[in-house]
Amino acid sequence: MKNDLLLRAARRQPVERTPVWFMRQAGRYLPEYRAVRAKADFLTLCKTPELAAEVTVQPVELVGVDAAIIFSDILVIPEAMGMELIVEEGKGGPRFPKPIRSVDDINTLRAIDPNTELRYVMDAIRVSKQRLHDEVPLIGFSGSPWTLATYMVEGKGSKNFRHVKEMIFSHPEQAHRLLKRLAQSVADYLSAQIDAGADIVQVFDTWGGILAQEEFEEFSLSYIQQIVEQVKKKNVPVIVFCKDCGHSLKKIAEIGVDVVSLDWTSEIGKARNAIGKKVALQGNLDPTMLFSTPERIEHGVKSILQKYGNGSGHIFNLGHGILPETPVENVKAFINAVKTFSVQYHVKEK
Amino acid sequence: MKNDLLLRAARRQPVERTPVWFMRQAGRYLPEYRAVRAKADFLTLCKTPELAAEVTVQPVELVGVDAAIIFSDILVIPEAMGMELIVEEGKGGPRFPKPIRSVDDINTLRAIDPNTELRYVMDAIRVSKQRLHDEVPLIGFSGSPWTLATYMVEGKGSKNFRHVKEMIFSHPEQAHRLLKRLAQSVADYLSAQIDAGADIVQVFDTWGGILAQEEFEEFSLSYIQQIVEQVKKKNVPVIVFCKDCGHSLKKIAEIGVDVVSLDWTSEIGKARNAIGKKVALQGNLDPTMLFSTPERIEHGVKSILQKYGNGSGHIFNLGHGILPETPVENVKAFINAVKTFSVQYHVKEK
Repeated sequence: MKNDLLLRAARRQPVERTPVWFMRQAGRYLPEYRAVRAKADFLTLCKTPELAAEVTVQPVELVGVDAAIIFSDILVIPEAMGMELIVEEGKGGPRFPKPIRSVDDINTLRAIDPNTELRYVMDAIRVSKQRLHDEVPLIGFSGSPWTLATYMVEGKGSKNFRHVKEMIFSHPEQAHRLLKRLAQSVADYLSAQIDAGADIVQVFDTWGGILAQEEFEEFSLSYIQQIVEQVKKKNVPVIVFCKDCGHSLKKIAEIGVDVVSLDWTSEIGKARNAIGKKVALQGNLDPTMLFSTPERIEHGVKSILQKYGNGSGHIFNLGHGILPETPVENVKAFINAVKTFSVQYHVKEK
Repeated sequence: MKNDLLLRAARRQPVERTPVWFMRQAGRYLPEYRAVRAKADFLTLCKTPELAAEVTVQPVELVGVDAAIIFSDILVIPEAMGMELIVEEGKGGPRFPKPIRSVDDINTLRAIDPNTELRYVMDAIRVSKQRLHDEVPLIGFSGSPWTLATYMVEGKGSKNFRHVKEMIFSHPEQAHRLLKRLAQSVADYLSAQIDAGADIVQVFDTWGGILAQEEFEEFSLSYIQQIVEQVKKKNVPVIVFCKDCGHSLKKIAEIGVDVVSLDWTSEIGKARNAIGKKVALQGNLDPTMLFSTPERIEHGVKSILQKYGNGSGHIFNLGHGILPETPVENVKAFINAVKTFSVQYHVKEK
């Protein structure tokens, strides 16, 4: 691997500068991505390995990130389990016309073999690895069981998550039945991604933060822990991103994960003090800051670097996915600022 | 005041049981509210003191809460300052067709005298006080400057708050100019509500949680502090509710406020350990739990009471506003559970 900064930082090994990538880096803010999307709808793009690999590699070449992340969607798992999935990018988000609302619904879900139903993801990983020529690592990923369950039960994006909350409060045994099945699917899926060539994997718990702390531990974190335990056998680093879960960083750091990814509402200096001896940290610039000026972005990057301080164990990222309208020149200013101003924090490690 | 439990708990004085009210208690979950709304649109209801007072008093009589909160909307301030406001309840929320995007826009905003432009709120408070016959306290309220600014700049509800974030990152001096004017308006508005009869007031910072911690302190909390300092001269307790700001509870507790209101993602026992010697706490049942069963609700109430523990300084509430589809029988089960099971935590104080 020519540039393995990400893998070394994830293991808190010395690096020459802080590595940087960002969530949704293969996406609509790039004209080159939109050109590919003009040829295929979103799910066709996910399911066509050559096209998925093309957009996976784009941000490495175009904006200079230190890793690629395989282009896919977290909802391919429920689709593979038998749920009809409709994705109309930019039109209110993905939806399942027949959401899960009962034990009978849960029982209709198929067990999956990721190398069969999700073989297109593994093929996309293999093609991406070829195209990357070992320049930078490739990140595999999955949604967390809880986050997948929220979409499967609500059927679409939600403001209050009334239906999935009703399930955990009124029928917790149903929720656990669903989450247990999802945890097994996710663990198998991530393991297969590693076998196909992923160098590191990330679990996205986008909706862990809608739960009270006890419920977060019971219905989300415990299942992520099961996944981490199984996936760690493959000896690649595991990143966990639980959005809006700053209240539970210590618990998240205790489940055997290598990297805890922070949204922008956590203060990375405080987080390092709390859990930095156990795990590396990823994050955490507010993605909306990329709508400001290169000078302001540089200031924001410097501030986060300074809060994290000296030494390895930091992977720079945004606090959540980049927004589609973000100007590319500001993305480049962000990447360049990390590359330039992080060097001084690693001098002693050279 | 026949039942002054809320006022005593807000001051951490002994009480016989924990008082309870809940955000949006005068609202669509009540058939009696919907009957009044059938006669008038939302803003007409806000601006007609007899009707506003009618729905203000309803939950005291119908579900037995320990306080009334004046029926109004946080966006009446920007409307009084000259912004056209359109509220179509249940249809994507309120909106301002001409949002604030520049210094020129800010300069068009009028200074307000709450007893003139918002006299209908003061009249509604006076009529409500008459109808309450000193049975329970009446709560006045306002949105925080930051939360008002988000609506004024975005023009409508938002997922990413791109425009108001662009203002604070690229033109912070504009944001401060707007927030300073709003802070003065809110302080004057709450003071006028107290003069009209409000026994206690609450500041709602619904969107403080979209900011990183430093920005929360700079753009939201500092202005709430200015308001608290001015309003405290009126000698009534002040409650502050900053949603999704569990990271900053200690800072919030230091601005001179009497009660810190918690959303359901904060653990009330931990919060009491952290700030319970400085302030009373309000909260914090997940509003979606009211879609479960009376037994589950009772369990949830007992859990929060037990986490807070013995003694005064707790006002029971939901962690955010009640949802419109909530069954009334579950609301009654919630209120009754608080009244029944909180007694044991106050025995020593009798």
